[in-house]
Amino acid sequence: MIIMEKGATQEQINDVIDEIKKHGLRVDISRGEFRTVIGLIGDESKISFANLSIMPGVKEARMVETPYKLISRDYSDLFINKDESRIVKVGDVRIGGDDPVFIAGPCAVESREQIFRIAREVKGAGAHILRGGIYKPRSSVHSFQGLGSQGEAEAREALGWLRAAGREYDMPVMTEVRGEYQTELIGEYVDILQIGARNMYDQDLLSRVGRTGKPVLFKRHFGASIEEFLSFSEYIVAEGNKDVILCERGIVPVGKGNSYTRYTLDLGAVPVVRRETYLPIIVDPSHAAGRRDLIFDMSCAAIAVGAHGLVIETHYNPKEAIVDAKQMITPGELKDVIDATNQISKITTFYRKKIN
Amino acid sequence: MIIMEKGATQEQINDVIDEIKKHGLRVDISRGEFRTVIGLIGDESKISFANLSIMPGVKEARMVETPYKLISRDYSDLFINKDESRIVKVGDVRIGGDDPVFIAGPCAVESREQIFRIAREVKGAGAHILRGGIYKPRSSVHSFQGLGSQGEAEAREALGWLRAAGREYDMPVMTEVRGEYQTELIGEYVDILQIGARNMYDQDLLSRVGRTGKPVLFKRHFGASIEEFLSFSEYIVAEGNKDVILCERGIVPVGKGNSYTRYTLDLGAVPVVRRETYLPIIVDPSHAAGRRDLIFDMSCAAIAVGAHGLVIETHYNPKEAIVDAKQMITPGELKDVIDATNQISKITTFYRKKIN
Amino acid sequence: MIIMEKGATQEQINDVIDEIKKHGLRVDISRGEFRTVIGLIGDESKISFANLSIMPGVKEARMVETPYKLISRDYSDLFINKDESRIVKVGDVRIGGDDPVFIAGPCAVESREQIFRIAREVKGAGAHILRGGIYKPRSSVHSFQGLGSQGEAEAREALGWLRAAGREYDMPVMTEVRGEYQTELIGEYVDILQIGARNMYDQDLLSRVGRTGKPVLFKRHFGASIEEFLSFSEYIVAEGNKDVILCERGIVPVGKGNSYTRYTLDLGAVPVVRRETYLPIIVDPSHAAGRRDLIFDMSCAAIAVGAHGLVIETHYNPKEAIVDAKQMITPGELKDVIDATNQISKITTFYRKKIN
Amino acid sequence: MIIMEKGATQEQINDVIDEIKKHGLRVDISRGEFRTVIGLIGDESKISFANLSIMPGVKEARMVETPYKLISRDYSDLFINKDESRIVKVGDVRIGGDDPVFIAGPCAVESREQIFRIAREVKGAGAHILRGGIYKPRSSVHSFQGLGSQGEAEAREALGWLRAAGREYDMPVMTEVRGEYQTELIGEYVDILQIGARNMYDQDLLSRVGRTGKPVLFKRHFGASIEEFLSFSEYIVAEGNKDVILCERGIVPVGKGNSYTRYTLDLGAVPVVRRETYLPIIVDPSHAAGRRDLIFDMSCAAIAVGAHGLVIETHYNPKEAIVDAKQMITPGELKDVIDATNQISKITTFYRKKIN
Repeated sequence: MIIMEKGATQEQINDVIDEIKKHGLRVDISRGEFRTVIGLIGDESKISFANLSIMPGVKEARMVETPYKLISRDYSDLFINKDESRIVKVGDVRIGGDDPVFIAGPCAVESREQIFRIAREVKGAGAHILRGGIYKPRSSVHSFQGLGSQGEAEAREALGWLRAAGREYDMPVMTEVRGEYQTELIGEYVDILQIGARNMYDQDLLSRVGRTGKPVLFKRHFGASIEEFLSFSEYIVAEGNKDVILCERGIVPVGKGNSYTRYTLDLGAVPVVRRETYLPIIVDPSHAAGRRDLIFDMSCAAIAVGAHGLVIETHYNPKEAIVDAKQMITPGELKDVIDATNQISKITTFYRKKIN
Repeated sequence: MIIMEKGATQEQINDVIDEIKKHGLRVDISRGEFRTVIGLIGDESKISFANLSIMPGVKEARMVETPYKLISRDYSDLFINKDESRIVKVGDVRIGGDDPVFIAGPCAVESREQIFRIAREVKGAGAHILRGGIYKPRSSVHSFQGLGSQGEAEAREALGWLRAAGREYDMPVMTEVRGEYQTELIGEYVDILQIGARNMYDQDLLSRVGRTGKPVLFKRHFGASIEEFLSFSEYIVAEGNKDVILCERGIVPVGKGNSYTRYTLDLGAVPVVRRETYLPIIVDPSHAAGRRDLIFDMSCAAIAVGAHGLVIETHYNPKEAIVDAKQMITPGELKDVIDATNQISKITTFYRKKIN
Repeated sequence: MIIMEKGATQEQINDVIDEIKKHGLRVDISRGEFRTVIGLIGDESKISFANLSIMPGVKEARMVETPYKLISRDYSDLFINKDESRIVKVGDVRIGGDDPVFIAGPCAVESREQIFRIAREVKGAGAHILRGGIYKPRSSVHSFQGLGSQGEAEAREALGWLRAAGREYDMPVMTEVRGEYQTELIGEYVDILQIGARNMYDQDLLSRVGRTGKPVLFKRHFGASIEEFLSFSEYIVAEGNKDVILCERGIVPVGKGNSYTRYTLDLGAVPVVRRETYLPIIVDPSHAAGRRDLIFDMSCAAIAVGAHGLVIETHYNPKEAIVDAKQMITPGELKDVIDATNQISKITTFYRKKIN
Repeated sequence: MIIMEKGATQEQINDVIDEIKKHGLRVDISRGEFRTVIGLIGDESKISFANLSIMPGVKEARMVETPYKLISRDYSDLFINKDESRIVKVGDVRIGGDDPVFIAGPCAVESREQIFRIAREVKGAGAHILRGGIYKPRSSVHSFQGLGSQGEAEAREALGWLRAAGREYDMPVMTEVRGEYQTELIGEYVDILQIGARNMYDQDLLSRVGRTGKPVLFKRHFGASIEEFLSFSEYIVAEGNKDVILCERGIVPVGKGNSYTRYTLDLGAVPVVRRETYLPIIVDPSHAAGRRDLIFDMSCAAIAVGAHGLVIETHYNPKEAIVDAKQMITPGELKDVIDATNQISKITTFYRKKIN
């Protein structure tokens, strides 16, 4: 990372960039009111920080010690206050501030009627963003893979319903991108691209999604450490796209015998991520629990621990859903979650500001 | 489990008990206002539920399906409401009700002055119970093992300080029992016996501690599933001791690379345990985090998810502590935790009653 | 799965296929000397096995109970003997028979000289197939990602070297496909496509690679159960490509503290896989160990447990390798591994035939 | 660790010991033909190695870097060759040399007839040591806990049968110690005390068992890293008892879904342990697999990877066993395992000597 002096000229900045590119690395440029910081993308061992530090206009040149660099607090501290996160703006919604953001909708988009009715009802409950799966990742090739997997026409139709429902009820929309060849198509229709847990390690997909420039919701794999989670998110950011929303959704349970939940929600990851990086982080209690009776409790905990929002699978009649019927809650239940967590957020925000 | 009829006579009850004992099993007897329920301890396959069910005075005889039986909701529902937990009473403190209980104190008792000063300060911050380690479980035989490990005289001296500090500041006291031969000695001095995570699977120790009749704080092993955790707690209860307080303190992190916390706090275990058993459950954020800057966030989450209380390592000057210096907070920081979590508890308790 | 009668006509077979397709499912057709078996690809709950079983020419129609179907022993037992595996043929090499197959080469292809010299030396040591990475999956965007990631021209050049080295020393060649857009290009040059551990869950990539019809080496993810591993392999097979070679390469270590190896090799997976499916399975000790001094021991164990072969990273001068320098062995060390494991294989093969 | 000079007098040695004890530490003394090495037991930070190193007769005083010290190769290299392990002698059996040692017998001792018949048949198959459980650790208080748990008289009777069967067929005998209060009683009857996986972390039990001076078979917990496993074994050695045989018996499976085995055998642990410590290590395939059809394959792998022996549950009629019926093999099957692994051991021993 190269911190330029306050009065550094554009020419000096360009010289530094040229020097870096000459060694086969790419650059990330952050411009503040007074100064510019240049981040390196690629193998830093190929370049001499000592040489860079004596170039005209350079105040300081040094390595970022964490395995992820562009997303680290260390790199961003000049522009983002340590207690705050980057605000990702999607339409009128701001993710990363004091107020929690609620993303709701069905596991899979099944019909125009279904997604419109759910959109209306989750909006009424207080949700800000509409989600709905069109390409579904599944453990078995024999399971329903979403309308999108049936062909481009079906994919466009379902994507169109989702977009229209979002517009009708004034919510940005989000869906999952499961494969590289789907990226452009989905990008035409939705506001946020989701990378599911199973694709977290798929670096070529991450790069491609990053290049769309659209906000990306990036879910942690159920077998990934926090370090891996953050390191792979940097594949998106390295494409010049810092609108990444991290999402904790549970890790594999420990030990022998029944854990009574599908996954183990790692809520300690939330404050850790808030200290390690400036990216906002939200929580998905639905996939972690895998059962609707725990959603209220785990949502309260997620907001209390400091999450910037929640993704909750919601359906007016969970039993009739094709996928994830057991874990979806109703819009009425969603309202209680939103009301309670908004109150909790006020308390914890107050104390966090007092403490820091 | 044998549910007796409302008008069953003591003689009929005794006959059922005799029949069970004849097959080499032991019994657990729960008496309500109107009826008696008899639980079986031992191998149920040795006995015929059909035969038991036709004995005079028996209303119903059936197997409890969970691997743990005496602690299951199924067995207790006749006496404890599904939304409530058993109240464990220790002096004037009630663990398991709506109000969270706070257990605080140093990792290790080091001197009379140290434990008295900490007792005074945590009481001032709002703590209800005083903790302090005298026999410390350690991964290395070369580490400090607590004053208790230095001999019986040293153990009695340290236990005496702990008891006296508790009396002076009107708090029951708790310490860990690490080995069977320590049980009686420790039982003379303290109000709650703690079983640490490393000893969770040590069934002979659990039986022995159970037989003291004293309340037991039972910590989950860091590699144990929830099912194992509950199954092993039944070794204590099988000795006729239902005053068991369960404690979640973190499981081993997942994946490769840095997790940034010592353990992964499994907060989803709290609502699961509240649905599976009537035993109260509290959370220890200190050992899970292993770093003091996360204690506030994780405590808020623990109470929000439904824990009946917290155990928090506290010291007036964490840096000078021999063990766990990095994870202890000060009494001043403890006060913020207690104040914030009491407010959160009011919100979540209100909504839980509304929902159920 | 539909087992046709011995004398079933092609018309009857076609009728069954049409009936299945009518419900939106695809089919897998296995023809033996005397009978044909039709497997279903897709959601079996949409179709009535009772109706299928009474169609003309059908002997039996029933569900395969395992989560994977087309690769299960249950489905294949009519054609492949229970003690044997499918033979995957690549050039003159046969993977899946009694004799172990050895795949060797560098982690990354770095130059024409490097890959030619390694090819010559591993051939001399007894290797059958040449491997070399051109697109490298990496945990950090800042690490060397292989020559392929530098552009198509560089990719084609490196792929050309690999192919030429294989031809020169009479070995089929294998390299990893990391992203969907690389599939066709790589397919032009190599004999076996490798799916690395990090991409195991990437179902769209698996389908695409499956459609090339080329043999696929499919590595288990380090966080995946055996069931997940087998279920995801079925995405390749569902494209009509049964030339899948499974590969165990280690799972994440358990517990706190140092495990002294990068991953934990799960050798019990080998006999399990041999009983669950007819696909051959080989072992990669290099990535599991992460240190060269354990390769001999772990290779002996892998062959002893029943693996059909080994993939071993080999370099004439491990220290100068850009990636994985610590775990590569020399061709001389490879020769000892090959000699010892060939002897072990003879013993275990003899006893396995005696026992079964 | 303090290395004394070759000509150091006993008085000088005593002075060093006194100096160490003065700081509250204990000592471990290893005497070779020419020199004496003194190991420290306890908190090394309390003592000055600089001061020790200038005492008369001291050649070198330095810290051992590993978390375990007395069992480390670093500490023992003066007396035990790097390629060899300590030989633990039990009667005429030598554990730790080139020839594998086979320990066999039923999960639980059930009757005099049962253990005598099994003893005779496993001896005939080639076993060296007889095992049989008398106190059984169980996950449920409702399961059969072994004859020993029924009272001291029953324990003595069963222990007497085991000892008598061993004498009759000329095999040392081994049984598990589950609790501290059983140690002395069991020590009266058997030659090797076993610490089961569930008790690995129970440091007070380890110390007590160590103090008997009898050989101890020490099993790794299913959730323990190799570092933890070795660190806890040092609690036994710190009591002056170096006759510790380590035992790998499987760790918890990874991932979601079926792993098809009860535990995951970590065979890579064997060569790691052989490099880290001089203690011999054997493998228990029975508890790892949990199914008899995998015992042959996993036994071959265990010996191939370098284990010094195997513990295999054996019964003339597995189906009638009360505990672990699914994983026991017959004496006839045991013979094939012993014959095959003896042949494998010859091959791997030859190559290991060639390589080192």
